[in-house]
Amino acid sequence: MTSLDRIQTEVLEEITPGQAERDRLEAVTDTLTDRAADAIEALAVDATVTRVGSTARGTWLAGDRDIDLFIQFPPALSRDELESCGLKIGHTVLPDGHEEYAEHPYVKGEYEGFDIDLVPCYAVSAATEIQSAVDRTPFHNAYLQSKLTDEQKSDVRVAKRFLKAIGAYGSDLKTKGFSGYLTELLIIEYGDFQSFIQAAAAWRPPVVHDPENHSSTSFDDSLVVIDPTDPERNVAAVLSAENVARVQHYARQVQSTPHIDLFFPEPTEPLSTEQFKDHLRQRETTLIGVVFDTPTIVEDQLYPQLEKSRNGIVAALNRHGFGVLRSMVAAETESLILVELTTRTLPAIERHVGPPVHVRSHAEGFFNAYIDDESVYGPFLDGDRYVVERPRSCRDAVSLLESEMLFDVGLGTHVQTALEERYRVLVDEELTELCSPFGTTFAEYFAPHP
Amino acid sequence: MTSLDRIQTEVLEEITPGQAERDRLEAVTDTLTDRAADAIEALAVDATVTRVGSTARGTWLAGDRDIDLFIQFPPALSRDELESCGLKIGHTVLPDGHEEYAEHPYVKGEYEGFDIDLVPCYAVSAATEIQSAVDRTPFHNAYLQSKLTDEQKSDVRVAKRFLKAIGAYGSDLKTKGFSGYLTELLIIEYGDFQSFIQAAAAWRPPVVHDPENHSSTSFDDSLVVIDPTDPERNVAAVLSAENVARVQHYARQVQSTPHIDLFFPEPTEPLSTEQFKDHLRQRETTLIGVVFDTPTIVEDQLYPQLEKSRNGIVAALNRHGFGVLRSMVAAETESLILVELTTRTLPAIERHVGPPVHVRSHAEGFFNAYIDDESVYGPFLDGDRYVVERPRSCRDAVSLLESEMLFDVGLGTHVQTALEERYRVLVDEELTELCSPFGTTFAEYFAPHP
Repeated sequence: MTSLDRIQTEVLEEITPGQAERDRLEAVTDTLTDRAADAIEALAVDATVTRVGSTARGTWLAGDRDIDLFIQFPPALSRDELESCGLKIGHTVLPDGHEEYAEHPYVKGEYEGFDIDLVPCYAVSAATEIQSAVDRTPFHNAYLQSKLTDEQKSDVRVAKRFLKAIGAYGSDLKTKGFSGYLTELLIIEYGDFQSFIQAAAAWRPPVVHDPENHSSTSFDDSLVVIDPTDPERNVAAVLSAENVARVQHYARQVQSTPHIDLFFPEPTEPLSTEQFKDHLRQRETTLIGVVFDTPTIVEDQLYPQLEKSRNGIVAALNRHGFGVLRSMVAAETESLILVELTTRTLPAIERHVGPPVHVRSHAEGFFNAYIDDESVYGPFLDGDRYVVERPRSCRDAVSLLESEMLFDVGLGTHVQTALEERYRVLVDEELTELCSPFGTTFAEYFAPHP
Repeated sequence: MTSLDRIQTEVLEEITPGQAERDRLEAVTDTLTDRAADAIEALAVDATVTRVGSTARGTWLAGDRDIDLFIQFPPALSRDELESCGLKIGHTVLPDGHEEYAEHPYVKGEYEGFDIDLVPCYAVSAATEIQSAVDRTPFHNAYLQSKLTDEQKSDVRVAKRFLKAIGAYGSDLKTKGFSGYLTELLIIEYGDFQSFIQAAAAWRPPVVHDPENHSSTSFDDSLVVIDPTDPERNVAAVLSAENVARVQHYARQVQSTPHIDLFFPEPTEPLSTEQFKDHLRQRETTLIGVVFDTPTIVEDQLYPQLEKSRNGIVAALNRHGFGVLRSMVAAETESLILVELTTRTLPAIERHVGPPVHVRSHAEGFFNAYIDDESVYGPFLDGDRYVVERPRSCRDAVSLLESEMLFDVGLGTHVQTALEERYRVLVDEELTELCSPFGTTFAEYFAPHP
């Protein structure tokens, strides 16, 4: 038994649901399935209830409490009918539930400590015939159940725990990591957890898998796993190149120095005000934070907009000559876009290179535009081009972010609206006031790891 | 008569030598030629005396006082014999002369207010057969004399005056401009001064002329004029792209707003200490000068070495992250390499990007090199690469130039020797102590024009 074998056993002890948990889950699921069947009958619609998700397949981690029940309706049913029937059944099953909205509305609620989703979908004949994105899920579920052995279910659990530990689990747009489905497919593909680790450590992207050997499209992604139920879909489409690199890095760590901490890392201690100031002194950079009320949109909308806003701000700062060393975003009640600069202020003038002198009309246009301008030095020659040194439009990065220029960088829509309402720009030690909501984020920023 | 015609007439009045000057030049040349012939006879060698240069061709500017006499020896003569005979004849003709060294030694001296060069060369049968670079000169002289009309000689004078006025006359390695020979060939090529101006204003480099239509090589230069006496030589080889652009710029000025100042510019007033400080305040950059004793080498060695040193320093500063806005060199008793920076100091850390994680051996090497290094932040991931933030080797541009790092930038040989002996680094207002030797240079630096 290798050291990794022993650790894997130790991990499994932590994450495998015990018999009591399994029994309780089964009981709750049965109760809810029966309730749904009764509601279907009462409505006299042609529908069936299907359990999906990791709790349906026996690949959930101990303590996870998600039960997903899909109500499958005939494909001929109108979308309006599907929605109204779906919601009626949902409310009957979960009288205290509330409605949420994905591609169409569904009922979500708590029942005996479990988180229940009751999702209506179409009972299409194949995953390639879907009318709504959720129609695919029962096919994924069926595929995995037909392929996964009991041993592999344990390996799926270990793989999920590993991916969670390194921050690469979840196909939401904040994480851009591995979905449960993707994780399970990879375990089927490589056979077990340790084979997956060994392969990932040696990946040379692009890495392509096509379990059913039916791919009909090519993809640009670092990792491609063709959906066994849909030849045109890459299950890993949302996975970022950074998360691929992250898995590779930690897979090598698991190989070279296996340790339980790789599966259950110590939680990060929030950074104190004093520690924050220490880092400022040690780095001698300029840290600037744009702080504003977090827009009230779902996370899968929020994070792409925060990223877009960050990229716009970073590009504008770089374009103006303030070297951006690093940046990040974070969201609590307030959101923070943080940029770290090598230089906060720049000289009064900047170099502006004109056209080559021999491109006559452009060159004469440039020369005439500047020759009577008292505020510039030049035009003079550098090689075959005209050059002037002209006053900078922006000499202070903080002023740039406090000015109207902030709204020209290409912000995310709801971020822009929030900033138009109100925002603050905090610099260096002023940022310590955020150590309370963002202490852990700051700690990770100043102790960055793969 | 156009406005430019009138100005051209005015210029010619200033630069055409008067009859008295011509007579004196003829008399002196005759005297020296006779003396040289006598010396040849006394030595009993087979040699002849040839007048070359602008005074031989009647294309010199009033007040120029260069007389070039070439002593042509048979090609069979050994180089030692040529040198010793050449020097003997030279010292006989100019008893007060001194020896200088180009490709071989020759005698230079003053005679009745004229600057005389007595240069020994081989009387080869064609310019393509030369044994020494100076052997070509008599061929150039003969070619021009056979082609230039009297009217064109006036146009050559105007062209030379124009090129001097804009700082583009002279094929020395400081100026990298137009030689006399090149100027005369261009007047022959275009016919007269105004046609040259019209052509230059519209040049789209590369501009190629081959007066004898015998070119056998291709050249990379902006302006190519194939030597009529040598199909493998570009007469404009030393001309910089910047001087081509300069001629284009001022040719357009001559066309659009002809003025006598374009031929006789006002001399630049040296910059005062107060004016220097005004520019510092206005630009808010950092100016740093490296000051050292000028190496005692000829200008054609000195300026390439100063340029090489400047380029090395600029590249090193840019590489370290100090943005170089502009730079220049100047040489008096002391030499100055001046750099102007957007930032004098940088933060304590710098970003250092490692290999992609999937390039396993490099990636592991990088990770292991830094993971236990307490002085760095990281390694962390940015996209698919490892990155660290490490302490900067140099945070202050002045310290860099004051340190041993200065000697690693690729200095010119004699500049390096001079710096090893002694140098100073002056910053911002400290540079005002140089306003005395370099006042005019500073004035041109802070009022740059094409």
